[in-house]
Amino acid sequence: MPKIAKKGIDMPASPIRKLTPYADKAKKDGKTVFHLNIGQPDIPTPEIMLDAVKHIDFKVWAYTPSEGTASYREKLSTYYNKLGYGVDASQIMVTNGGSEAITIAFLACLNPGDEIIIPEPFYANYNGFACMADVTIRPILSTIENGFALPSIAEFEKLIDSKTKAIAICSPNNPTGYLYSKEEMESLKALCLKHDLYLFSDEAYREFCYDGNEFVSPMHLDGIEEHVVVFDTVSKRYSACGARLGCLITKNKEVLQTSLKFAQARLSAPSVAQIAGEAAIDTPQSYFDTVLEEYTIRRNILVEGLNAIPGVFCSTPGGAFYVVAKLPIDDADRFCQWMLESFSKDEKTVMMAPATGFYSTPGAGKNEVRLAYVLNQEDLRQALDCLADGLAQYPGKTV
Amino acid sequence: MPKIAKKGIDMPASPIRKLTPYADKAKKDGKTVFHLNIGQPDIPTPEIMLDAVKHIDFKVWAYTPSEGTASYREKLSTYYNKLGYGVDASQIMVTNGGSEAITIAFLACLNPGDEIIIPEPFYANYNGFACMADVTIRPILSTIENGFALPSIAEFEKLIDSKTKAIAICSPNNPTGYLYSKEEMESLKALCLKHDLYLFSDEAYREFCYDGNEFVSPMHLDGIEEHVVVFDTVSKRYSACGARLGCLITKNKEVLQTSLKFAQARLSAPSVAQIAGEAAIDTPQSYFDTVLEEYTIRRNILVEGLNAIPGVFCSTPGGAFYVVAKLPIDDADRFCQWMLESFSKDEKTVMMAPATGFYSTPGAGKNEVRLAYVLNQEDLRQALDCLADGLAQYPGKTV
Repeated sequence: MPKIAKKGIDMPASPIRKLTPYADKAKKDGKTVFHLNIGQPDIPTPEIMLDAVKHIDFKVWAYTPSEGTASYREKLSTYYNKLGYGVDASQIMVTNGGSEAITIAFLACLNPGDEIIIPEPFYANYNGFACMADVTIRPILSTIENGFALPSIAEFEKLIDSKTKAIAICSPNNPTGYLYSKEEMESLKALCLKHDLYLFSDEAYREFCYDGNEFVSPMHLDGIEEHVVVFDTVSKRYSACGARLGCLITKNKEVLQTSLKFAQARLSAPSVAQIAGEAAIDTPQSYFDTVLEEYTIRRNILVEGLNAIPGVFCSTPGGAFYVVAKLPIDDADRFCQWMLESFSKDEKTVMMAPATGFYSTPGAGKNEVRLAYVLNQEDLRQALDCLADGLAQYPGKTV
Repeated sequence: MPKIAKKGIDMPASPIRKLTPYADKAKKDGKTVFHLNIGQPDIPTPEIMLDAVKHIDFKVWAYTPSEGTASYREKLSTYYNKLGYGVDASQIMVTNGGSEAITIAFLACLNPGDEIIIPEPFYANYNGFACMADVTIRPILSTIENGFALPSIAEFEKLIDSKTKAIAICSPNNPTGYLYSKEEMESLKALCLKHDLYLFSDEAYREFCYDGNEFVSPMHLDGIEEHVVVFDTVSKRYSACGARLGCLITKNKEVLQTSLKFAQARLSAPSVAQIAGEAAIDTPQSYFDTVLEEYTIRRNILVEGLNAIPGVFCSTPGGAFYVVAKLPIDDADRFCQWMLESFSKDEKTVMMAPATGFYSTPGAGKNEVRLAYVLNQEDLRQALDCLADGLAQYPGKTV
């Protein structure tokens, strides 16, 4: 029997789905499981987008150009230019979800053995994309105590050596919800220019900034155009995760042309999604206002509810729809599994993502969990009750 | 400015699209261009499939499980079991087109530096997937004179060394249209068992077998279950290239579980396509009968028409919808470009794919082109007229 590849062995399993068998078992046993573990929003997709799907009028479901349809890229450029990105359609390459944009950028820009610095905790699947491209992620610890703000530039400098090729950020952040300030972005810019590094910017949660906080992209900064590659997706913006539609944006021609070769090898992104994505650009502002209001309420319920539980702490995230909370427990992996296997309150329990999966540093995040506030307010309150009761009963509690 | 990766430089550009700027120019100049260069069929997608898209009834366009929806995989298994594959849903992983199935299998099964033997000419994008996974393709020459039949096993044996990890085939073949016989498949099976190699089987054109020829998959052969990985796609079967829906099928549990980790990193395949793909399994047989009849007629028109042109030779392909033809010319790349740039007949011309892009051996296929018979009969006849005239006028002709 032929052997599997080393990369196949090294490839990390998704930490978010690690506990799925326990959740399945809990449901089979009749428990209601509140899914705070995964970023699948319950928010309806804009009707304008679903209508576009329902009204397709082609007879042949054909390939689109590898870089995406001209009309979708044109429309996307209007969206980005409203945000002040100053891009034209030729600087946008449509991808199979944001995931593929990241994979292609890693392959196009980074050599095997190259290093990429990412503040941790970070989106766990970056580990998978790095494995695919044989690049090494050097984590730099951000801490719950200061709300997961950008670590000091001095800390970055300590990690930078001849192998360092890029810095990757995600703002608003998954898993922490932290939103980088203009000052933090400027300091990253200076760092990337000083050391000639790529600045990869994962902007999946751009539309989710709370309390009037301003979103700042590296696309807003002058003089760093050749360094910046933005990863975007319709998944969260329009609650359209299943469309698998993202894009890669860069003003660096060489990166774009190289990325296009990878896109050509896989021929095309999904065409119906591109039709829908094009329609979605005309989603009325009222949709986003309503969604933002709803998420703000949920965030407040969750943050207040968490901090009201003895021994629990979390800061108030400025964006996205996640929060990382510190719990009075010995081991988040064990606790999250216990909540599914051994706990229920009125036949209900909560599934959370142990934060360990979002850290590279061994041992980091051992008493932290990530919670996604993607459920309605009533379910969130019930989930909080479950968590409070679970913590009170958990044999491994530390306070 | 940060440097591009070596892999980004090495990544081959798509040979099928290399001449696109010349075709665009020709169209701008008012010429009609018959596209025989690319496998985008003009055949209508089954209505049952498009109707499924038009009747989506979800409110939230959500992720599906990374391995595909349970109902689609279940339905797919009924399709494969009608073909005698003996698979269950758990042995099928849904992918973003056939392309992703190939990429994932390469990454999961092959180490950097490993070698994979592929009879050439072969589907040009295998070069891109190999580049992504850092594996080396060792081509083994099949020749136009014997219709691109499987090269002798002795020729394979000459290439096999400690680095050889897999053999990849595509039957019916893109670009040659050759359909491997039961005997050829049995000899490949024996070879893979003897040397403990994976047998990758690209079956994109399975439904297109002519003249009553039987399609044989390695899935039909006993005793090689652990070695076989099948790549499939709905692109050609249902003329649904833009759905970006494929799958990876294997009875090797380790390969499947490892592949799933790669699928988890990118979260999900497109959900609307899976709904449509599930509906498509119920496409009536009459659809395939009609399509097969049409392609048979087109093939006959093209093959007879080509062989009637002085100095042109092609064999009669047993499947797919491509033919590789030998032309009386100095250089296929130059000729194909000349046909777009410098030739027209009644303001019409033909775009073909130079076969050089489908060979790895330098110089091979220099006087061959690939033609896809994806146009209607009248257009095909006109394209043949153009080609005959073009060959008569081409300054680099050799007879």
